[in-house]
Amino acid sequence: MNYELKNLPERTRKPRQFGFTMAMDKGLSVREAEDFVATCADHVDIVKLGWATSFVTPNLKEKLKVFKDAGLPTYFGGTLFEAFIIRDQFDDYRRVLDKFDMQFAEVSDGSIDLDHDKKCDYIAKLSEQVTVLSEVGSKDADKIIPPYQWIELMQKELDAGAWKVIGEAREGGNVGLFRSTGEVRSGLVQEILTKIPFEKIIWEAPQKAQQVWFIKLLGANVNLGNIAPNEVIPLETIRLGLRGDTFLHFLGIERKKTNTTPPFEVE
Amino acid sequence: MNYELKNLPERTRKPRQFGFTMAMDKGLSVREAEDFVATCADHVDIVKLGWATSFVTPNLKEKLKVFKDAGLPTYFGGTLFEAFIIRDQFDDYRRVLDKFDMQFAEVSDGSIDLDHDKKCDYIAKLSEQVTVLSEVGSKDADKIIPPYQWIELMQKELDAGAWKVIGEAREGGNVGLFRSTGEVRSGLVQEILTKIPFEKIIWEAPQKAQQVWFIKLLGANVNLGNIAPNEVIPLETIRLGLRGDTFLHFLGIERKKTNTTPPFEVE
Amino acid sequence: MNYELKNLPERTRKPRQFGFTMAMDKGLSVREAEDFVATCADHVDIVKLGWATSFVTPNLKEKLKVFKDAGLPTYFGGTLFEAFIIRDQFDDYRRVLDKFDMQFAEVSDGSIDLDHDKKCDYIAKLSEQVTVLSEVGSKDADKIIPPYQWIELMQKELDAGAWKVIGEAREGGNVGLFRSTGEVRSGLVQEILTKIPFEKIIWEAPQKAQQVWFIKLLGANVNLGNIAPNEVIPLETIRLGLRGDTFLHFLGIERKKTNTTPPFEVE
Repeated sequence: MNYELKNLPERTRKPRQFGFTMAMDKGLSVREAEDFVATCADHVDIVKLGWATSFVTPNLKEKLKVFKDAGLPTYFGGTLFEAFIIRDQFDDYRRVLDKFDMQFAEVSDGSIDLDHDKKCDYIAKLSEQVTVLSEVGSKDADKIIPPYQWIELMQKELDAGAWKVIGEAREGGNVGLFRSTGEVRSGLVQEILTKIPFEKIIWEAPQKAQQVWFIKLLGANVNLGNIAPNEVIPLETIRLGLRGDTFLHFLGIERKKTNTTPPFEVE
Repeated sequence: MNYELKNLPERTRKPRQFGFTMAMDKGLSVREAEDFVATCADHVDIVKLGWATSFVTPNLKEKLKVFKDAGLPTYFGGTLFEAFIIRDQFDDYRRVLDKFDMQFAEVSDGSIDLDHDKKCDYIAKLSEQVTVLSEVGSKDADKIIPPYQWIELMQKELDAGAWKVIGEAREGGNVGLFRSTGEVRSGLVQEILTKIPFEKIIWEAPQKAQQVWFIKLLGANVNLGNIAPNEVIPLETIRLGLRGDTFLHFLGIERKKTNTTPPFEVE
Repeated sequence: MNYELKNLPERTRKPRQFGFTMAMDKGLSVREAEDFVATCADHVDIVKLGWATSFVTPNLKEKLKVFKDAGLPTYFGGTLFEAFIIRDQFDDYRRVLDKFDMQFAEVSDGSIDLDHDKKCDYIAKLSEQVTVLSEVGSKDADKIIPPYQWIELMQKELDAGAWKVIGEAREGGNVGLFRSTGEVRSGLVQEILTKIPFEKIIWEAPQKAQQVWFIKLLGANVNLGNIAPNEVIPLETIRLGLRGDTFLHFLGIERKKTNTTPPFEVE
């Protein structure tokens, strides 16, 4: 850090098991990836190449090398897995992971209907090849999954070999964990936390208010995902109580209701 | 592409007459323009230097060269044309086009009142010098043009020599083709399409939901414009059915209404 | 400028006392800072390193040098001042300003309760070391300060030695000067202007509609702040009447209500 400040919340250090930031690259150039790692490498734990953007991104190998050289693991978004599955090209997908020397992969069913036992089979099979992140929640706003089922799905996927489970929100933060307005489904989150250890979950939380909500609930070291590249530094300040939103929270100070005297004498 | 996927919608190839992506640069630096072409040159067909940003952008010639060297034609936004016209400086405008060796120009009346015959005269005159894109629709949210007039205006501008006509939406996507909420005026679009060939129209569609709407209506190869530089890769995945929004659409698959069994026994 | 246009509003030139643009850097890399100054150095007067982002930004000295070499002064956001004050580390803060050779500093109380006489003392003390910008307004949306108090606070802070006072809006533009929707508290602004000279105030106005509102009220040379790096060029065109929003405003032209004849004969 560039100077000393007392009484900051303690942050875990890399390699982190929790306190984890997953950033989303949706098509950075090689040089933009270099800029990103120059500022964010210490504050990011893993980079997702969002959905199937890796299909159309030029210089992919060169970009992956930039992340690797900075010590940042990468993985292809779950939609790419689904694109191969729905075309009955699972073996091709495994070869793609090998071709690009990927150490992580995501298994999801956000855009397709996939029998859950079958999904768990994919998790188990891919776990022999890479570290698997699995994702729960649909990209379809009309598909509401009740909390007890989120828990059941998450637990089974962890049991099948997923390293961590991801709560779906998309790039916009308006499905899955959140209402279409971006508001957190707080009952859902709290119910999930009664059964699944918080360090096993990565919450997709692209909007600032969502990040603040999770940090206030679970502390500086909650795992958060789908963070835009230029929001990684801002997120780190929120985790540390160095942005207005969590400034007093970590110091345990309540703000006075008004800081002004009334404009008239009270009789 | 970086790997093989079966059953993708067929995309037109450059130089495209349709399936066209127009990106909007609102002040990129020379190096940012280099980053842009490094990732997007294959996926973009033309770059607009938004409204009159070219007036205040330093190193303009150098930036235009970056686009040119990448095979990307450029043009100045229509507001610049209007800025010259309202000052009675049309000849100066023609000299500016020459000075910067522009091959394309936009003729619009989004911010000024311009007699339509006069507008068509400008289109005809500029067509002798450059390829003309003309734009229909006002930047003023209160100025509603009924569909039959959109059609009449578009047809006359094509007759006057416009290569393609652009449907106005601004950078925000909240006027012209769209309501202030960003919602598509779908009746308007459908009515226009009964008379004007779809390959002659570029729909300004800066918001993702707008892009998805047009792609679902008109397919992977609809002409779309006002795409922000960092949304070009995402748009290409939407065109290819490789993002959640159009994932099943191109495969002709309907999603099941629920993927869960009810939480209770039905008697 | 890249070409000549007649009848543009006159802009002040650097070093500006008003007509001032303050840009907000929330974590640019060194190379991104270079890109920024390459396009924006002439159009920006000062760069704020937003809130306490300077704490976690790597290569800080190198980045500050990029701004300095481009003739752009910089300062740390007021939240950093508050982070030191609430920890009783004011002397440490002064040393940080020295360590990074800062010529400007912000004094604010957006996130903390600070007795106003004490705030003015800090302004006075720091004024001996650097040029002080002070900020009025809370980051807490529930904390409404009535206009007469804004005026009193601003006047006292100027009297205490602040070079200019800043009206709070945050990065989002949804508190302080603005309602949670981003709408300007226009009565507040107009009342402030009856007492405080407009050149002494920097209005934080990150949203385009907010910038347009202030420029229409106060002209091309109003001081505006919290401008995102990629919005500096767009803002300059709005100041010059070269974007749709202020295009006719500076020419004193009213647009016709409709530009079309009615679709039916009126009896």
